[in-house]
Amino acid sequence: MAEDKIGSVGIVETKTVRLVEADEPLKLTSGKSLGPIDAAYETYGQLNSAGDNVVLVCHALSGSAHAAGFNSRDDKKPGWWDIMIGPGKAIDTNKYFVICSNFLGSCSGTTGPGSINPATGKPYHLDFPMITIADMVRVQKLVLDKLGIKQLLAVIGGSMGGMQVLQWAIEYPQIVKSAIVIAATSKLGAQAIAFDAVGRNAIMSDIQADRPPKKGLATARMIGHITYLSEQSMREKFGRELRSTEKYSYDLGAEFSVETYLDHQGQSFVERFDADSYLYITKAMDYFDIEKDYGSLQKALAETKSRFMIVSFTSDWLFTPAQSEEIVNALVAQRKPVSYCNISSPYGHDAFLLEPEALGSLLSGFLSTTMEKPKFEKPAVVSAAKGFDRIKRVRVDYELIESLIKPNSRVLDVGCGDGQLLLGLQHDKNIIAEGIEVDQRLVSQCVNNGINIIHRDIERGLKHYPADTFDYAILSQTLQTLKNPKQVFVELLQVSHKVIVSFPNFAYWRCRANLFFAGKAPRTKQLPFRWYDTPNIHVLSLKDFEDFCDEVGAKIEQKIPLIGNRASPVKFAPNIFAEQAIYLTSKK
Amino acid sequence: MAEDKIGSVGIVETKTVRLVEADEPLKLTSGKSLGPIDAAYETYGQLNSAGDNVVLVCHALSGSAHAAGFNSRDDKKPGWWDIMIGPGKAIDTNKYFVICSNFLGSCSGTTGPGSINPATGKPYHLDFPMITIADMVRVQKLVLDKLGIKQLLAVIGGSMGGMQVLQWAIEYPQIVKSAIVIAATSKLGAQAIAFDAVGRNAIMSDIQADRPPKKGLATARMIGHITYLSEQSMREKFGRELRSTEKYSYDLGAEFSVETYLDHQGQSFVERFDADSYLYITKAMDYFDIEKDYGSLQKALAETKSRFMIVSFTSDWLFTPAQSEEIVNALVAQRKPVSYCNISSPYGHDAFLLEPEALGSLLSGFLSTTMEKPKFEKPAVVSAAKGFDRIKRVRVDYELIESLIKPNSRVLDVGCGDGQLLLGLQHDKNIIAEGIEVDQRLVSQCVNNGINIIHRDIERGLKHYPADTFDYAILSQTLQTLKNPKQVFVELLQVSHKVIVSFPNFAYWRCRANLFFAGKAPRTKQLPFRWYDTPNIHVLSLKDFEDFCDEVGAKIEQKIPLIGNRASPVKFAPNIFAEQAIYLTSKK
Repeated sequence: MAEDKIGSVGIVETKTVRLVEADEPLKLTSGKSLGPIDAAYETYGQLNSAGDNVVLVCHALSGSAHAAGFNSRDDKKPGWWDIMIGPGKAIDTNKYFVICSNFLGSCSGTTGPGSINPATGKPYHLDFPMITIADMVRVQKLVLDKLGIKQLLAVIGGSMGGMQVLQWAIEYPQIVKSAIVIAATSKLGAQAIAFDAVGRNAIMSDIQADRPPKKGLATARMIGHITYLSEQSMREKFGRELRSTEKYSYDLGAEFSVETYLDHQGQSFVERFDADSYLYITKAMDYFDIEKDYGSLQKALAETKSRFMIVSFTSDWLFTPAQSEEIVNALVAQRKPVSYCNISSPYGHDAFLLEPEALGSLLSGFLSTTMEKPKFEKPAVVSAAKGFDRIKRVRVDYELIESLIKPNSRVLDVGCGDGQLLLGLQHDKNIIAEGIEVDQRLVSQCVNNGINIIHRDIERGLKHYPADTFDYAILSQTLQTLKNPKQVFVELLQVSHKVIVSFPNFAYWRCRANLFFAGKAPRTKQLPFRWYDTPNIHVLSLKDFEDFCDEVGAKIEQKIPLIGNRASPVKFAPNIFAEQAIYLTSKK
Repeated sequence: MAEDKIGSVGIVETKTVRLVEADEPLKLTSGKSLGPIDAAYETYGQLNSAGDNVVLVCHALSGSAHAAGFNSRDDKKPGWWDIMIGPGKAIDTNKYFVICSNFLGSCSGTTGPGSINPATGKPYHLDFPMITIADMVRVQKLVLDKLGIKQLLAVIGGSMGGMQVLQWAIEYPQIVKSAIVIAATSKLGAQAIAFDAVGRNAIMSDIQADRPPKKGLATARMIGHITYLSEQSMREKFGRELRSTEKYSYDLGAEFSVETYLDHQGQSFVERFDADSYLYITKAMDYFDIEKDYGSLQKALAETKSRFMIVSFTSDWLFTPAQSEEIVNALVAQRKPVSYCNISSPYGHDAFLLEPEALGSLLSGFLSTTMEKPKFEKPAVVSAAKGFDRIKRVRVDYELIESLIKPNSRVLDVGCGDGQLLLGLQHDKNIIAEGIEVDQRLVSQCVNNGINIIHRDIERGLKHYPADTFDYAILSQTLQTLKNPKQVFVELLQVSHKVIVSFPNFAYWRCRANLFFAGKAPRTKQLPFRWYDTPNIHVLSLKDFEDFCDEVGAKIEQKIPLIGNRASPVKFAPNIFAEQAIYLTSKK
């Protein structure tokens, strides 16, 4: 019963549905046909009357339709993503109607190589036709059709599940309101293919001797398992610990803990998984290549209509953050609404199953703000640091920046913190808002505020943005903290019609006096740091900035020197009396 | 013949020598005994009359005694390290007498599991006793004894060869004048053990069905091969390229180029290597753990007498730079002479076979300066930038720094460039010199200048140095370029009795005037940078530094304000008239 497990969807039933009959088989990507096709699926929560609260969850290589809850009272382990799915959890079954279906080719209820081949009356085994991620998604679509689902609030998946999400967004743009791609890639690289190939090789070698090829499958799973963990997590979990004694046994048995652990992983996998399915599924993964299928990643994503959220994990070396960023960059280049977060985690690829807090906050925030735009509440006082206490930046008055921005424009805020400025501009000026932020916690806040946010260090470059993507780019109190301010400013001038820059004036009279009379590096209210702990690693004055604009070919359209946060601009000798300044600039 | 191959040792013969007779077997680490033992070896070059030019080369897992040249005129491939060993090459056979012997347990001439078991008259196979790296080194020592070799100029090895080098330096400190450890580790981590274990598992599974277990060995080799390459090198070499067509074949055959490549690697390995040897050697690697054997890495290295050079490769994820740094740190903590270089390479672990230039320069420089101390030639003009054109630092007059240093002291130069200052101090003051430098090219120059040099960013910390390791630490024109100058300065005060600091004075009158009258970030002869491209990310004056010393508990023992590089210190109002300053400081 559900009641005795807090936050659990309780006892759930895996249902099976006939999707395709033998006499009307499904045409597969490979050109071959397959029928009959059955699919196993589970659902959690209730479909609302508008039918707009459906969340489709796509599972990974060894997963199944059983994503949450328990299949019986005696079940010891809940579904594979129970930490995320349930009442009050990130994918909240009190709000959303959640569907998870076992994909084609698998061995947990949906038709696969272990199913009976109607032509022979025996299991297909290696006579099963090759399948692709696209085939799997097509079959999932048939499940939804059977259930009468017309639109998806979100499609979510990690690892191979994330590949299915991409395929969904591309193939069914009208249906998929949002797409959450976690620890995935648009195509496997050579190293990942290599690991898959060695696993398949071990199975195929074993099949020649033995069926089921238990040893080969165990080897394949052991290889896979190493790639799902990070070096760090293995080191911390096992190190060089021995299984039983402190002394080496000097024989060929498994004696390090990590060996016995992998042995166990291999053995237990053999008991629950079909080696043929493993061959077909890894091959489908290797085949997955959006670039090849659609000409380029950008072309593939050009017709999508979804809000995207891409999530990677810092220690994932199977599907790396760089691969996630490729997807992000292609979406950005196509001016699609996208958020990206690279979650700091030691757990490697498996982190998508093991980071309920960081990942959960992103999922719940993204889902709820996709379901309903958050109401804007003007903060009583706009926080000077915008929640950004890592570096105590001194922020200029936002109202002045707002005054420079025309309604309905497209605005990029670089180092946007929790997104308060963008929220205000959205509310007051109806802008299209995008943010870039380097701090993971603030990225998560942006997502929860409904802001499209890219988790990135601006110094890594903006070259994936097309020219003039934005009407305004805002660089507030950041220029002087950058390692390479020139590169960033020049790139911003490329991607935005206008660039708004604010910075503290190092030639403010107190600074001058400090140095001139006291012979010390200046410390003022606006520059409160000591010489050795300041985030301001470059010092510049209004004059310096104006010379700089001249040099890099920027036109100064407006200049607002300020004393403190006072909104009344300095009229007289600003390079002496202004503590900081806001400039509106553009390409010459 | 040698003549027709330029830079080759030519035709060489692998010799075999009986080391241990059956009736006087060798006692192994495991407690078991082994006899008879034969060893295969090759030599290149000539032993000199002093007998002090011997270089022992240790090979890796799949290597052999055949390190250079050709075994016959028809040989298509030279020895495994031919790029390094030969006349005029890094390990110059015109100068050195080079020995390489096949290690115990291998299958290329030295006794191993494929040898005949005298008890049965049949090959040992899995009745061969377990062996360790220590056993291998003991057998190598017997080879040298047979050859009458009494001392080793250097022991060199990459990967598992580097483990043997460590064992040599620890077990035979009196013999080993220098030890060069390349892409190695003092112990395998959990991930590396895991890969080995899966490989062994595949072989052992196959042995039950088949002998020789060709399929299992091929699988093991394929796994190993992936770990020898980097993700980047695999991506660049193979990407997602298909073997023959542009279209997927939609079957289970190997169709990606990387698959066929690995298949080929597996197959060709099976033809030349023995599966049993693979089991024993990988197990010996997994067992290797200096920490466990000697109580700690530091204890293990405490009695060594060698000059060490540790080399790692940036993209090596099997035996990582961090693992090399552990060895370096332990040596530093034991105040042993050590140089370290982390070579930037995309080739992963295999880089030790593929970086002849960068690695070759280190090897030849280290070998020749170990053989003979380089003569000191005072440069006509000490280069202001010390070859350090990456950041155009303005250097103070070295003579002034020299004047602060007492003879016979131990000196650390932080950011030492090519080591000219240390060379001068060695010559004039007979100091013990150590350097830290972040630029690989300059590290290599230091090695060639005979300076013990650690390749490291000083901001990563000095905590592995014991307190008061040095009499003097020099931080010349570097303080203001550091992200965290306070941490570095405080750490230097810990590891050194005295710290000599020089920096440009930001309160020099021209700077003051610049800011005060022109309202611009200062540019002077000593501070020639623009505000946005300066390496000086912190600005400080003499007064600032003195306040700073007070705050961190440093005593100023001497202060030398300077105008330009002029050796005559500024007497009057130095914070105004000095362009730069040198301070001699110590802990309070």
